[in-house]
Amino acid sequence: MTVLTQHFRTVFWEDDAAVLLDQRLLPVREVYNRYRDVDGMADAIRDMVVRGAPAIGIAAAFGVVLAARQASGDREAIRRSCAQLAATRPTAVNLFWAIERMKRRMDRDGPSVSALLDEAQRILSEDIAACRTLGDLGAAFIPDGATVLTHCNAGALATGGWGTALGVIRSAVAAGKNIRVIADETRPRLQGARLTAWELSRDGIDVTVIADNAAASLMARGQISAVVVGADRIAANGDVCNKVGTYSVALGARAAGVPFYVAAPVSTIDRACAHGGLIPIEERAAEEVTLIDGVRVVAEGVPALNPAFDVTPAHLVSAIFTEAGVFEGDYGKSFSRMDAQSAAER
Amino acid sequence: MTVLTQHFRTVFWEDDAAVLLDQRLLPVREVYNRYRDVDGMADAIRDMVVRGAPAIGIAAAFGVVLAARQASGDREAIRRSCAQLAATRPTAVNLFWAIERMKRRMDRDGPSVSALLDEAQRILSEDIAACRTLGDLGAAFIPDGATVLTHCNAGALATGGWGTALGVIRSAVAAGKNIRVIADETRPRLQGARLTAWELSRDGIDVTVIADNAAASLMARGQISAVVVGADRIAANGDVCNKVGTYSVALGARAAGVPFYVAAPVSTIDRACAHGGLIPIEERAAEEVTLIDGVRVVAEGVPALNPAFDVTPAHLVSAIFTEAGVFEGDYGKSFSRMDAQSAAER
Repeated sequence: MTVLTQHFRTVFWEDDAAVLLDQRLLPVREVYNRYRDVDGMADAIRDMVVRGAPAIGIAAAFGVVLAARQASGDREAIRRSCAQLAATRPTAVNLFWAIERMKRRMDRDGPSVSALLDEAQRILSEDIAACRTLGDLGAAFIPDGATVLTHCNAGALATGGWGTALGVIRSAVAAGKNIRVIADETRPRLQGARLTAWELSRDGIDVTVIADNAAASLMARGQISAVVVGADRIAANGDVCNKVGTYSVALGARAAGVPFYVAAPVSTIDRACAHGGLIPIEERAAEEVTLIDGVRVVAEGVPALNPAFDVTPAHLVSAIFTEAGVFEGDYGKSFSRMDAQSAAER
Repeated sequence: MTVLTQHFRTVFWEDDAAVLLDQRLLPVREVYNRYRDVDGMADAIRDMVVRGAPAIGIAAAFGVVLAARQASGDREAIRRSCAQLAATRPTAVNLFWAIERMKRRMDRDGPSVSALLDEAQRILSEDIAACRTLGDLGAAFIPDGATVLTHCNAGALATGGWGTALGVIRSAVAAGKNIRVIADETRPRLQGARLTAWELSRDGIDVTVIADNAAASLMARGQISAVVVGADRIAANGDVCNKVGTYSVALGARAAGVPFYVAAPVSTIDRACAHGGLIPIEERAAEEVTLIDGVRVVAEGVPALNPAFDVTPAHLVSAIFTEAGVFEGDYGKSFSRMDAQSAAER
């Protein structure tokens, strides 16, 4: 059995600071930034020092700890900081989920820094455990010798560790399977090229990068065994909101008869959101498209549209891997069954 | 009626040289390179100083003129130069078509520089005329007020002038229609961002750039009226080989009920090629993906795949606009009818 070691950490607490691996500098430089106040953490989330739905949630939880330390017992100040953190990015639901959980802990135990740090650490360690569990569950769907296509980065860099989509791949490799990964570069921010390729090659997993444009034709030519992606929000009916371009990959997979899997912790499922059309899609700066590393690639004065996410309708999703089990078929029904079950267990 | 002026030339003969607008430097700089020998022209085609199926054919025809001048009557030397030019790029059939036409002229009139220059000039002027005709025919399919999505650059920069896909748009605008263009940036070489946006904005046509990943979701959200793309080779059954990513756009269009049109001169149709699976797909250097403007975006040592083209199956193509008419439905049959008709006219 292959032993897999993860060679980096994405988001963690050390001494008196929250620490983020600055993902904007990868793959060229590996720099860890220390944050000691909530403003700095909010900026870091907005500027994508950290990204990926679960990782954003964990970073925001540490942000609440920083806010509590600054507020020295002022609950209203902490609540204002929670609102500030929640306003950094609109699409990933884990952000709001983590902040709500921190508020509930404050309601229970008061504005105690140590209680809130304990809660944030729980969110982090539960996320890693969830990734391990859903990774192992998903890996059962990936045959030995498979070539797996993924989009964006749903890896250890997008979570507390192990990863969701890349957690499935890590679990398959850890189980001794021979897996090759094709990573969409994922324009405009190139998370596939910059992050997924770095993360997998650093951990010794076979990875090849392609332009997003090449994904559908590789599938049509029979070169891809399965697609696994993460999610920023999953609606109650199973519609999946994820990095822009995911929907294209799903269409290509369907046309080629390639299974399209989504890997995400349960915290990504937004039962309050009936379908994908209701999910707010973040529109980011045009300069992410018109400039690359500061070099102009579009004529001066020409505008760009830059939606950061898209919605893949549930009928294109072959299965959803979560730490609470694998969902297939009618997602609305199976999510409801899961809710009923966990209510019964409480 | 709007008057449209094209503000640049792509490929032409001036005094004693073939001249190419160096497309690698757009949109930042507009530089015209002069070529006086066939080696230089072959390198220019391979290095994509000029690109776009019809423009490559015209450039190669001028290359044969340069070869004839160097060979001073040696037919075998000219034939060797033809083979050299034909070996520059594998996919676009117009390249081979133009070189064959130059050889036939030599067979008829001997290795005369003036006869061959006359033939190359005819190829150029016929291409512009074909683009005008197919542009006008295609424009009838584009309603006033339409938002048209295009992929790569099938414009004046890809042809002798006017363009194929962008010729349709120019003709619609020239007919007084209010047209908005959405240009896919077209990774890895960014011909949409660098060339289409420059070309259209220079001619005063409304254009907005998007990452390729955003195309399918824009269509799903009802923001695109029609897709028009060019072609590098069309098989006898109507399968369309074009810039990688075109197939993804076609899948997105079909899923959203958006018409998907192809605009190309008849010289793009390869009757000797039964279906798209037989078209050789050029694999270009991995560095087109792993480096952007010389800046590394993929971790050292990670490989990339870089197919330059893909095949859109005929059943996803709503219509093909050519200078010989508009084809719809069973392309194999209608191409045969066209052949029979043009044989009867001869």
